[in-house]
Formats: sequence, structure tokens, C-alpha cells
Amino acid sequence: MGKKRTTKYKKHIGQVPGAIIYTGEKTAQKLFIESFDYTETTINEQELTNIEDVFSYKSTESTTWININGLNYIDEIEKIGNHYDLHPLILEDIVNTSQRPKIDEYEDYIFIILKMLYYDKDENIVSEQVSLVLGDNYVLTFQESEGDVFDTVRDRLRQAKGRIRNLGSDYLLYALIDAVVDHYYIVNETMGNKVEDLEDMLFEGVIKENLNKQVLDLKKELLKVRRVIFPLREIISRVEKSDHKLIKKKTIQFYRDIYDHIIQLSDTIDIYREMIFSLMDMYMTSISNKMNEVMKVLTIMATIFIPLTFIAGIYGMNFDHMPELHYQYSYYILWAVMIAVFLGMLYYFKRKKWL
Amino acid sequence: MGKKRTTKYKKHIGQVPGAIIYTGEKTAQKLFIESFDYTETTINEQELTNIEDVFSYKSTESTTWININGLNYIDEIEKIGNHYDLHPLILEDIVNTSQRPKIDEYEDYIFIILKMLYYDKDENIVSEQVSLVLGDNYVLTFQESEGDVFDTVRDRLRQAKGRIRNLGSDYLLYALIDAVVDHYYIVNETMGNKVEDLEDMLFEGVIKENLNKQVLDLKKELLKVRRVIFPLREIISRVEKSDHKLIKKKTIQFYRDIYDHIIQLSDTIDIYREMIFSLMDMYMTSISNKMNEVMKVLTIMATIFIPLTFIAGIYGMNFDHMPELHYQYSYYILWAVMIAVFLGMLYYFKRKKWL
Amino acid sequence: MGKKRTTKYKKHIGQVPGAIIYTGEKTAQKLFIESFDYTETTINEQELTNIEDVFSYKSTESTTWININGLNYIDEIEKIGNHYDLHPLILEDIVNTSQRPKIDEYEDYIFIILKMLYYDKDENIVSEQVSLVLGDNYVLTFQESEGDVFDTVRDRLRQAKGRIRNLGSDYLLYALIDAVVDHYYIVNETMGNKVEDLEDMLFEGVIKENLNKQVLDLKKELLKVRRVIFPLREIISRVEKSDHKLIKKKTIQFYRDIYDHIIQLSDTIDIYREMIFSLMDMYMTSISNKMNEVMKVLTIMATIFIPLTFIAGIYGMNFDHMPELHYQYSYYILWAVMIAVFLGMLYYFKRKKWL
Amino acid sequence: MGKKRTTKYKKHIGQVPGAIIYTGEKTAQKLFIESFDYTETTINEQELTNIEDVFSYKSTESTTWININGLNYIDEIEKIGNHYDLHPLILEDIVNTSQRPKIDEYEDYIFIILKMLYYDKDENIVSEQVSLVLGDNYVLTFQESEGDVFDTVRDRLRQAKGRIRNLGSDYLLYALIDAVVDHYYIVNETMGNKVEDLEDMLFEGVIKENLNKQVLDLKKELLKVRRVIFPLREIISRVEKSDHKLIKKKTIQFYRDIYDHIIQLSDTIDIYREMIFSLMDMYMTSISNKMNEVMKVLTIMATIFIPLTFIAGIYGMNFDHMPELHYQYSYYILWAVMIAVFLGMLYYFKRKKWL
Amino acid sequence: MGKKRTTKYKKHIGQVPGAIIYTGEKTAQKLFIESFDYTETTINEQELTNIEDVFSYKSTESTTWININGLNYIDEIEKIGNHYDLHPLILEDIVNTSQRPKIDEYEDYIFIILKMLYYDKDENIVSEQVSLVLGDNYVLTFQESEGDVFDTVRDRLRQAKGRIRNLGSDYLLYALIDAVVDHYYIVNETMGNKVEDLEDMLFEGVIKENLNKQVLDLKKELLKVRRVIFPLREIISRVEKSDHKLIKKKTIQFYRDIYDHIIQLSDTIDIYREMIFSLMDMYMTSISNKMNEVMKVLTIMATIFIPLTFIAGIYGMNFDHMPELHYQYSYYILWAVMIAVFLGMLYYFKRKKWL
Repeated sequence: MGKKRTTKYKKHIGQVPGAIIYTGEKTAQKLFIESFDYTETTINEQELTNIEDVFSYKSTESTTWININGLNYIDEIEKIGNHYDLHPLILEDIVNTSQRPKIDEYEDYIFIILKMLYYDKDENIVSEQVSLVLGDNYVLTFQESEGDVFDTVRDRLRQAKGRIRNLGSDYLLYALIDAVVDHYYIVNETMGNKVEDLEDMLFEGVIKENLNKQVLDLKKELLKVRRVIFPLREIISRVEKSDHKLIKKKTIQFYRDIYDHIIQLSDTIDIYREMIFSLMDMYMTSISNKMNEVMKVLTIMATIFIPLTFIAGIYGMNFDHMPELHYQYSYYILWAVMIAVFLGMLYYFKRKKWL
Repeated sequence: MGKKRTTKYKKHIGQVPGAIIYTGEKTAQKLFIESFDYTETTINEQELTNIEDVFSYKSTESTTWININGLNYIDEIEKIGNHYDLHPLILEDIVNTSQRPKIDEYEDYIFIILKMLYYDKDENIVSEQVSLVLGDNYVLTFQESEGDVFDTVRDRLRQAKGRIRNLGSDYLLYALIDAVVDHYYIVNETMGNKVEDLEDMLFEGVIKENLNKQVLDLKKELLKVRRVIFPLREIISRVEKSDHKLIKKKTIQFYRDIYDHIIQLSDTIDIYREMIFSLMDMYMTSISNKMNEVMKVLTIMATIFIPLTFIAGIYGMNFDHMPELHYQYSYYILWAVMIAVFLGMLYYFKRKKWL
Repeated sequence: MGKKRTTKYKKHIGQVPGAIIYTGEKTAQKLFIESFDYTETTINEQELTNIEDVFSYKSTESTTWININGLNYIDEIEKIGNHYDLHPLILEDIVNTSQRPKIDEYEDYIFIILKMLYYDKDENIVSEQVSLVLGDNYVLTFQESEGDVFDTVRDRLRQAKGRIRNLGSDYLLYALIDAVVDHYYIVNETMGNKVEDLEDMLFEGVIKENLNKQVLDLKKELLKVRRVIFPLREIISRVEKSDHKLIKKKTIQFYRDIYDHIIQLSDTIDIYREMIFSLMDMYMTSISNKMNEVMKVLTIMATIFIPLTFIAGIYGMNFDHMPELHYQYSYYILWAVMIAVFLGMLYYFKRKKWL
Repeated sequence: MGKKRTTKYKKHIGQVPGAIIYTGEKTAQKLFIESFDYTETTINEQELTNIEDVFSYKSTESTTWININGLNYIDEIEKIGNHYDLHPLILEDIVNTSQRPKIDEYEDYIFIILKMLYYDKDENIVSEQVSLVLGDNYVLTFQESEGDVFDTVRDRLRQAKGRIRNLGSDYLLYALIDAVVDHYYIVNETMGNKVEDLEDMLFEGVIKENLNKQVLDLKKELLKVRRVIFPLREIISRVEKSDHKLIKKKTIQFYRDIYDHIIQLSDTIDIYREMIFSLMDMYMTSISNKMNEVMKVLTIMATIFIPLTFIAGIYGMNFDHMPELHYQYSYYILWAVMIAVFLGMLYYFKRKKWL
Repeated sequence: MGKKRTTKYKKHIGQVPGAIIYTGEKTAQKLFIESFDYTETTINEQELTNIEDVFSYKSTESTTWININGLNYIDEIEKIGNHYDLHPLILEDIVNTSQRPKIDEYEDYIFIILKMLYYDKDENIVSEQVSLVLGDNYVLTFQESEGDVFDTVRDRLRQAKGRIRNLGSDYLLYALIDAVVDHYYIVNETMGNKVEDLEDMLFEGVIKENLNKQVLDLKKELLKVRRVIFPLREIISRVEKSDHKLIKKKTIQFYRDIYDHIIQLSDTIDIYREMIFSLMDMYMTSISNKMNEVMKVLTIMATIFIPLTFIAGIYGMNFDHMPELHYQYSYYILWAVMIAVFLGMLYYFKRKKWL
């Protein structure tokens, strides 16, 4: 029990605010830096070993995307932060992986924190933090570890697919966010399947031992995904409505498109929640119905046979003077009486619609 | 189980945003294009085989309605999109049939996505996407497949019924939306009947095996319809309040009328929801009540006969020395005692109001 | 079942929007028109047979109230509509009796739809639609059938009671709305009594067969009344805040008074709702409590007598070799044992607080 | 049942709006008028028999507080209303004791309706209406009956305690409202104690017959208090934010203080509500748990002894040919079997954790 | 029972508003005053015995933090209040420890009330009030008793860590609030662990006697923490958005950071609440499931053996004429019949899936 409890918050308490401390768990991550510097006609992709190598791009006219994996390399992050004049609180936020998705608009750049969502091998939802900084002609992205959802963006940059090379850094930011949001659909769909599985299971009466656990885990998953996706509504809406100099009018339509996706995802999550509640209600009703059925069987059996057993008990008594015992047809009469009682009871239960 | 799961979202992931990909399932649909070009006095209705045939209408003064069925004909849709200068994201939205109803206002046109609702043969609700583009003197509509709710609009155009030919494209758009909303009433009414059927069933005690399934299906239907109708409140309200040059002041009153309808429909849906919840609560209560009744019967029978059987059991014992067995009137006294116990019990249950 | 289902919506579908079609059921209603034309000092009350007779009042300085009963007289309503320049959609709304209460402000008049509420002979709530048009120096009212809540207004007009003759048409509108709202109090009070009856019934344990039905009917009534009253909050608030030329500053205070009434009524309805939910919760608890009590009786009886019966059964066996059967005091010892078991059980149940 | 139903609303229906009709029940109340006329240095306290005696204060520079008890004295209230130029609707509101707390701002005065709350001898919550009119240099208060919460204000006026004599009529109004709100704390605390009593009772298992009634009464009390306190949030907030000439900037800070109190009270009420819901949930759970326990006892007893009794029944049969009956050790073997069955059952229940 | 009830509110009732009365319970607290007076290069830390010693700092250019522990020293608090020109209502609020967190903006200072949260030795949550006054170049803090969460701030001041000595009093205020909020994380985490413990307990079926009590206590804790943390959202948001001269633009970013923390904490609290509700639902379901299982065992046993016992009872009767008793193989046939009945029953239950 002790192990799984998170203790990341504690790391921070008592520290100077603005102190740059990595709060995640991937401390063995290797530093990986890549850069894409492109214009409409040219592209220059590099894998860097040294953070300083990217500094020259700041002053060029071309658009630059610098992606850094490995938030445990505090020094490198500080260097790049200083070079791009990022506010110390931004650096703190980048390496603090327990952030909520958010947007901060500064005069010279826009800072966005998102969460990538995917299922790991054990079918657990994992969320990984991505920080994006949009500057004049650059986008910086910071990720905790290798492996991300940006491969389609990379391909489009390399092959000059679509408009990506023609439009500036604000479109690049859009493309990156869109890639993150696209992956939410996969997660959403998997959760939808889980809800449908639950439904099938309940209707087929397959009540597994761990049904409650399964429902609770699904609810937790929904809460987790909700927490990741819902703040995005406000974030994208603020990008869309902001008149920040970095967001060109032409690009806003694209952000509106993301906004529509987010709303659709939020709707779906709410529907899943409601479905689960309905299913649980249904489950309670079906338990009660089953109990009722069990009780009916018991009551019918007991109510029919208890009086009959009593009658049999009477004539099992050993009194010296029990005249009925000696009549010739007593036994047959008794059987007749018992059958009458039996049929009467059956009729009674039939009328009560218990049968 | 595997089959029914939707996988349409996946098609999109990893694609260039703005890529025009049909996400529906009706890939065998034939292309069908019709056009209505009219002024107050003239009307020209055509069924086209070639999308280019409609291009000439763009520059005329007359109002034109072009309706395209068959979203799988990407090329034709792109052609018309280019001819009318539609934003690539709009084309993407038109063919992506998993859109949420929405409105996008561009400088030169207004783009609206709606869902038509109807019941298919199996009494399942089907929703089909309609995209409408309102331009200066034209309205374009895009549907997934043949068969729609616009026949009344066609008739009014042909017969110059009402104001439809006198007013411009914004009134045509209104007439089309109104036709869609009118059909929501039919769906709403059918759902209302289902809720009333459920109520009747519960009160008549007809508890079918699949009641839970029926309730869940109804809830899902409500969720589905809600998802289609609720966004319309905002959409119509935005048309009403917008000061877009394409919406003339004279027409706004008509949109306000649709708005009232939508509010009324939303109200009804919420009432149905609440009714279902009340019915389910009632159902739980009635299950519990029935259980109580069953338990009472069992308890009364058991409580009366178990002690009597015990007494009979006593005098069925074979001890050599049981003086009562040999008295002459023991048997009759015993009967008297038993009847007294029986009556006492009855009196007790009577006082407890269990009988 | 089929009969009671409403089909009024269908009448409309496929019609030209703005078509004036009476959707109510009182098609045998006779046309009734009355007019009150008054100034501070004079009053002229007329019962008209011909709608054209009222047309002359339009141009006079005096204030005029024209009341029309009988929405099935489409022609007459169209005539008056044309004479007073009412928008076609207003005429459509007047005769469509399934409207939601609403307000529409036009340049030259204000159009309001309200619902009158009363109980019919069978104690069912009936709502009847009233449409009110406030013009420069006139108020038009349209009702479905004879019999209304405006008699007090008529009396005050005739007897020049209060301010009604001194102030203009906006005060007349206020007086009419106030008369409608006053009647809501009666309905509200009746519902309050029903809730209290329910409460009394539950506490006295009088659980009638049809309790569930009664609760459901009450909930439906509340929903119905809510639907009628709640939209009024916005309607009156819009009158109060509007700066429409027809609403004079002096009259606004009176509308604010109605607004207070509506808020109070809404509060009460919400409290009733909450009370019903609390009562149903309480009912469930009391059912469970009763079940518990029943089960205790069963368990006590069964638990005491089943072991005793077993013991008696043992000594009713017919084995040749059962030494106990032949001892002289066996029978008495057995009784002692049984009584001990009996008392032990009693003590056990006492300690468990089941007795 | 009939008696306790309120019928006060009916008095009003059909009356001219603005008619001044006392709707309370204290029609035998004697008229009581008192006045405090003060400046920073002087104070003049009077008990009046004649309403006209206070009229002279209107024109003086000094601040005047006139308190009138006895809303059944319509004439006197009308006289004072006319003298101070109060709107007829205000007079109507003053004597209509079923008002909701509210504020009306007029050009020359502010009109506030509050409810005083206290427990009567039978521990029922009583709410009494107070109307306050703040004018240029006067405050009028109207109460239904003798006895109020203003004694502390009177004392402070007499003894010139605190700032009350230095500041004008707006501070006097604050002091009066503050006195009303202070008494809400007492009521709130009593209700808090009731909730805690309920909690103690449930945990100690003391389940009284009338628990349900007690919970329902507490819920009703909360609803009643809520209805009195919640509207105050808006009322005070409007005073605070209003720029009415009668509210001086210096006094606003004091109103903000009341506002904080009201928020705190509202919070507490909501917490009590939530506590009661939690307690009732807990109660349901504990009923179910108890039922479970009862059922277990029954099941254990029945399951152990029913098979044993069956075995005993077998050997109580009177067949001529039952070889077991004649073996010498049959009886002992049977006992061994029975004990084995008994122990087996015990083991089974142990493993199921029912014991 | 009586003892634990709070009576602090009563102290206030009937007092002059603005009277400065300590409402807490720590009346034996000793007065403790400390001051930090610093510039970028110098720092002067003092422990004072006399409140007047700090007065000289008011006029210096340096930033001063004065911390006062011991709210029962009314006189000292009044002295400092007068020296710093604090509004009497602020002094009242400082010593009234039952305040809700709030912010009041005055022209020359900002007044904030917060609650520090920590667990005491008995694992109960304790909240202690801190009042903060931000002035031109000073911050005053008032605490109820010794021991606080500000040690990290003290250290940073002494060691000139971070920016704290370079920035003015608004940054100092931020650092103090941040220290308070940091401690909320610890409390939040402990509550999270309690929720997880509850979950583990329920899944392991360890149903302790006092589970209900534990759940209720946890719910109360959540309510308490919620009440402390939620108002902070508005408070910090108002600091962030205010354009008070005391809050410099440079510092606002830091307050936004606190705001993010508060939102995150609020989210977590809401998730805990939801988790508890889900867990309790699950608990109810599992109780019902267990009941079902118990009932099934009972029903199976009773249904199998009651008819068999009846048959045995039949042949235990003592009628003279019962032919079956005398056939040679009757006994064996009977066994066969009984076994058949037994197996039939088993088959029936198997088919019903009760086994």
C-alpha cells in the first residue's frame, strides 16, 4: 500500500518559489534534443547533443521547432530558458510534472501545458506532460521522456505536406496541439469500449467477482481523462479569443477546429459517466430483482410444506387415544387433505402472480 | 461485440489537419446533385450529373439552392468547395460525419452543421448529418445519403407557396433548418410515447424480463437526441444575434421562432429524463414493497406453524415415561392448545397490521 | 392507451412556416369578442359579433382592451392581425396552443404568451394559453375558450377602482398579467396541500396501494406548473428592464411587484419538489425498516424452534437401542434442556437488541 | 388537517393590486409606536399614542428612527406612508407578511424587507417580517408584533455607545440589519446542535420511532432558514454596490461586513444540508447491514438444523423393514454423523466469514 | 455532548459592531512579536517585547514584516491598528477567529484572512487563522498561537535566498501566502491516502464496525478543507486582477502561480468527494450482493430439505392402515425417491445459476 502513494508534492514544500525541481519519476531518462528549422522551401533537421547548438536559431527568420526530452536535465532547461528569456516560473512549471493543463500569456511568448494520454501495456491510462512555448518564430516543446505523438508533425515538416511549411510558428503550435488531441480520441474510444463491455456483461448476467473494482477503475479513468481534457476548453478558447500578436488571424480558424474537437470529447466523457451511473442503477435493480426471485422460491416452498409437515407431525404423535389413527381410510383422507392444501397454496401463489 | 464498435475516429489520426476524408459508412452511395435556381417569378429545377453544371449560378442575381447527396465523392466536394471559395476546414467537416452540430461564421458565408433525426425500420434512432453553407445568393447543402426532410421546402419552392420565393437565401436557410427541426418533434413525440408506455407497464405490474434493457435504451436515445438538439440552442441564438451581413433584419424574427421551438424541445427532453428517473425510483420502491409482502407471507406461515410442529414433535417422541400420552383427553387438549396458539398468532399479526 | 397520446405537433409538420393553424382541441368553441374602451372618465363596454366593429378603436386616444375567445376562428384572427399589423409569426403563435410562455418585442407592440392554470372538476391541472398584445393605446387578448381569470380586471374597469382607468395600456397589461399570476397562487396552494397530505399519510403509515401513482402524478403536476411559471421570470424581467417605448417608467414598479411574486412562486415549487424527494427517501427507509422488523420476527421464531424441533425429532426415532428413552426421568430432563435452550436464545436476542 | 393549512394567499386574489391588506394572523395586536430622534449630542426617545406626533421629525436635521409594531393598523400605516411619500406598493408589501426578503430602491428612499428568526417555546422556528425604509435622515421600521431583536441598538442609541450617534441614518439601517443577522447565528447554532444530536443518535444506535419525522422536520427548518437568509446575499450586495445617494461611502465597509456574515451563514446551512444527506445515507447503510446480520443468523440456524432434522425424521419413520433401526450402534453412529454435519457446517460458515 | 458544542458566536451577539473581541479558545497564549526589516543588502531581525518598538519602521524605506502571535492581546492589537490606521472592522476580524477566508481592499492597504491547515497529534485537521495586512512597505501578520508555516520564508529572508529581498512587500505577501498554500498539499495528500485506505479496506472486505463513522469523518474533513481552500480561488483571483497600487505588475505572475495551485487543490478535493460517493455506492452494492448470497444459501437448503422432511414425516405417522409401511422394499424405494428429489432440486438451482 505504502509504495503506490504519491509523494511528489512534498518535494516542493519549503522550497523557494520558482525553484526548478523535477518532480517526476523518470530520473534515469537520457537527454534528447532535436530541432527543425524550416522555411517554405528549406528544412534543416538536427539531433543535438549540446543545448547551445540551437541558440543560433533564435535570430534567424526561419521557423524553428526545438523539442527537448528529459526533464531531469535541469541545467540544460535553465540554459535554454535564459537564452529565450523565459520567466523563472515557466521553467519551474516545465519540470513540475504534476501541473494542471494551463495557458499563460506573456508579452513575448505564450506558454501552454498539456498532457498526452495513452494506455500502457497493462491497459492503464498514462498521462505525460508536454510544455509548449510559442515565441516569435519558434516553438519549444519539453517532454518527460522519449516517445511522443508528434511523428505525424515531423513527417509533414519533412515532406512539406499540407500548409505546415507555409505558415508560421502559430500554425506549428496548432499542429502539435492537434496531434495531442487526436490521441485523446483513441483513449476515448477505448473507454467507450470498456463501457460497452460493462453493459454487455451486465445484460448477460455475467457478474464477475471484481465487477465493483472494474467499475471503480473505469470511473477513476474517466476522472483522470476529464481532468486532462476539460481545462483544454478554456485554454483553446483563450487562444482563439486572444489578440496576442503571436496568433495570426489566419490561424484562429484552426484553433476553433481543435475547440470543436475538445467539446466533442468532453461531451463523450460526460455521456460515459452518465452511462456508468445508469448501469450501476440497473445493476442495483437487478440485484434486488434477483433477491426477490430467491425469496419467492423460498417462501413458496416453505409456505407449502411447513403446514403439510405439521399435519404429518400431528399423526406421528404417540397419544394412546387418537381415534383418527384407527379408522380404516384415515391415511387416504389425509392424503386428500394434503393434496387439497397443496393445490390451494398453488392457486394462491398463482393469483399473487408469484408463479 | 467487436463488430459494432465504431472505429471512425481512427481514420483521422495522424492525418494532415484539413485532410478531406469521408468518415461515414455509406461508401456505396451514388452521387446525386440537384439545384433550384429561383427569383420571385421564375424557378429552374435541375438534376445534375456533373458538378460543374452548377458553377454558372454563382454569378447570377437569382437565389440558388444546390443539394449534394453522397459524401463519399470527395473530388466533387472539393471542386465545389474551390469554386465557392470554402475554407479547407469546412470541406473536412462536411465529409466527417461524426461532427457535433455547430456554426462557423466566415466573412463571406456562414457554415452550419445539423443532424437530421428519424427512426429506422427497427425503431432505432438514426441521425444523419446535413451541412449547410449560406452564401450571398446561394445555399449549399451536403447530405450523406438519399432521402431527407426537405420535400416540403422543395414543394414550396416549386409552387411559390408562402414567402419563400420572395425572400432571399437567408430565408431559404431558415426554411431548411425549420424542416429539420420539425422532424425533431416527431422523434420527440415517439420518445414521449415510449416513456408513457414504460409508465403504463410499471403501473400495470407487467414487469418484463428486459425492462432494464428497455430503460437503458430509452436513456441512450434521450442522450443521443439531446446531443443533437441542445447545441442548436446556441447555434440559432448566434444566428439571431449575429450582425452578419448575410442575415437580413427581416429574417431574424423567423430564426427566433426556431429558437422557441428548440427551447421547447429541450424542455421536453429534460422532462422525459426526469420522468424516467422518477419511474425507476418508483420501480425500486415497488420491488422493495413486493419483497416486503413476500417476506410477510413467509414469516406469518413460518411463525405460526414452526411452534405447532414443535409441539407435535414433542408428542412424537418415544420415551417410555411420558405421562401425557396416556391420559384420555390429552389429544383433544393438545388440539385446543394448538388452536389457541394459532389464534394468538393471528391476533398478533393483525395488530401488527401484517394481515 | 392510443387515445390519450397527443398528436398536435404533427399537424404542423410540413406546413409553410407562418401558416396559421389552430392546434388545440376546442374546435367547437363559439367566437366571443368583447371590448372595453375607456379614458379616465368614460368607459364603453361592448360584446361584438363582428370583428370589424372593433377596428375603429385603433385610432382613438382612449385605451382599448379587446378580448377574443375562440382560437378556431382563424379568419377573424387573421383580420384583426392584419388590421393591427401583427407579424404573421405572431398569428401563428396565437393559435398554436402548445407554445411555451414567451415575450417578443416588436417595434410597435409587445407580444406575450402566458398560460392560465386551474384545476378542473377531476382535480387535474389544466393550462390554457392566453396571448397578449400590447400596442400604443390598446391591449389585445386571445383565449382558447370561455371562462377566464380576468373578471376582477373587468370589474375594476367598470367601477374605476384603483388606478386602472388613470394609467394607460401598459398598466392594463400589468393588471391582466397580475390576474393570471394571482391564480397561480391558488394552484400552488393546492399542490402544497397535496404534499402535506402525502406527508401525513406517510407518517400515519397509511400506505395506500396507489401511493406510487399519487407521487408520480404530483411530480408531473409540479413539472407542468414549473414549465408554466419559470419562463415568466425571464419574461417579466425583460419587461422590467426593457426600455421599450410602450412601457412607461411609472409602470415598471408594478412589473417588479409581479416579478417578486414569480420568484416566490418558483421558490415554493422548488421546495415542494425537494419535499417530495425527502418524503420518498423517508418512505424507502421506512420500507427497509419494516422489512427488518419482519425478518427479525421470522429469525427469532425460526432460530428458537428449529433446534427444539430437532431435539424432539431425535427422540422420535425408532432405533431399537436408544438408552435415553428408557430412563425414568428422561422426558423431564429433556423439557429442562429445551426450556434452557429457549431461555438462552431469548437472552441472546435480548442482548442483540432484537427484542 | 384542514385547520393548519395556510389560506393567506387567497385574501389577495381578486383585489386591486396595491390594495393594503394585512395578511398575517395577529389581528389582536395593539398598536405601538416609538421614536428615537438624535444628533451626535442629543437624544429624544418617545413612546407615541398618535401616529401624527412623529410627523414633525421629517423636516428636522436630526436622525430619526420610528418603529411601528402592529401591522393590522392599516389606517395608521397609510397615514405614515402618505406623510413620507411612500409608493402604494410599499405599503402593500409592509402589511403582506408573506413577502420574500427583498430590496427596492426608489429615488428618495430604500425599502428593505427582512425576516427575524427565533425559536418559540415549542422549539419551532418562527420568522417575523420586518420592513425597513431608509430615507434622507430617518429610518422607519414596521413589525408584526411586540418583541424584537433591536434592544441592543436602542441601548447603543441611549448610551451613545460606539459610532452610532455620530453617523447618519444609513449607519442606523446597518445597525438594525446587523442586529437581525446576529440572531440568525443563534438559530444556526441551534440547528447545528440538532444535526450533531442526530449524528450522535445514529452512531449510538438509538433509533427512535420518530427518527424519520425528526429528520424531515430538520430538513424543513433548514429550507425555511435558507429561504430567509439566502436572498440577503443579493440584498446586501446590492446595497454595497449601489451608488444610491442615501448610502455614504464611509458606511459601505460595514455592509460588506454583514455580507461576509451572510456568506458564512449560507455556507453553514449548506454544510448542514449535506451532513443530513450523509447521515441518512449512513442510516440506510446501517439498516442494510443489520438486515444482513439478521439474515445470517437465520440462515446459519436453518442451514444447520434443517438437514439434521431431516435425518432424525428418516429414522422416525415406521417402515417394517428399516435395517438400520436394529443394529446395536446405529444410534451412536447417527449422533456421530450429525455432529460431523454440524461441524462441517460451522467450518463452511467460518470460511465464508459469516461467523 | 454539551461540552463540544461551540458557543463562540454568542459572544458577539448584542455587541456594538466593530467591537474587538477575541473569539478563539487560546486565552492563555503568550504575546510574541517578531519583526524583519530588510532591504536588498541589509536585514534586521528582532524579537520584541513591546509593540511600540516596531512603530518606527513605518516611515523607513525598507520593507518590514511584523508577525504577532496571540490574538488575546486586544490592547496591543488595537495599538498597532491605530498606528497603521487600520479600519476598526479589520481589527474586529483579526481577533474573530471564526472568519471565512476573505480579502478586503482599502485604499492604503489590502487585508487578507487565510486559514493554515495541519493535522494535530490525534490526526484531526486543525485550522488556524492568519490575518495579513499588506501596506506600502510593510506586511503585518496576526496569528492565534505559536508555531506556523512561515519558517521557510524566515530562512529565505535571513539567507537572501531567491528574489525575496530584492522585491517589495507585495512579493513578501506572496511568499507568505505561498507558504500557507504549500501546507494544504500535505493535508490534501493525507486525505488522499485516507480515501485510498478506505478503498483498499472495502475491496479486501475488511468491514470494520466503525466504517460508517470513518466515512462520515472523512466527509467532514473534506468539507472543512473545502471551506478553507475554495474561497482562496476568488481571493487570489482578485489580487491577480486588481489594479491596486500595492500590487506591482511584476509580482502578478507569482499570484497567478498560486492561483494554479489552488485550482489544482480544488480539483483534487472534488475528486476525493466523488471517490467517496462512488465507494459508498459500491459498498451498498456489495452489501446487497452479500445479502443475496446469504439468501441463496438459505433458500437452497430450505428448499431441498423441507420437502424431504415432509416425506419423512408422512411415514412417521402412526395410522393403523398405511400399506406402504409394510412392503419389503418401501424404505429403499423412499430413499430412491428422496435422492431423486434432491438431485432434481440441485439441477433446478444449477439451471438458475444459484450454484
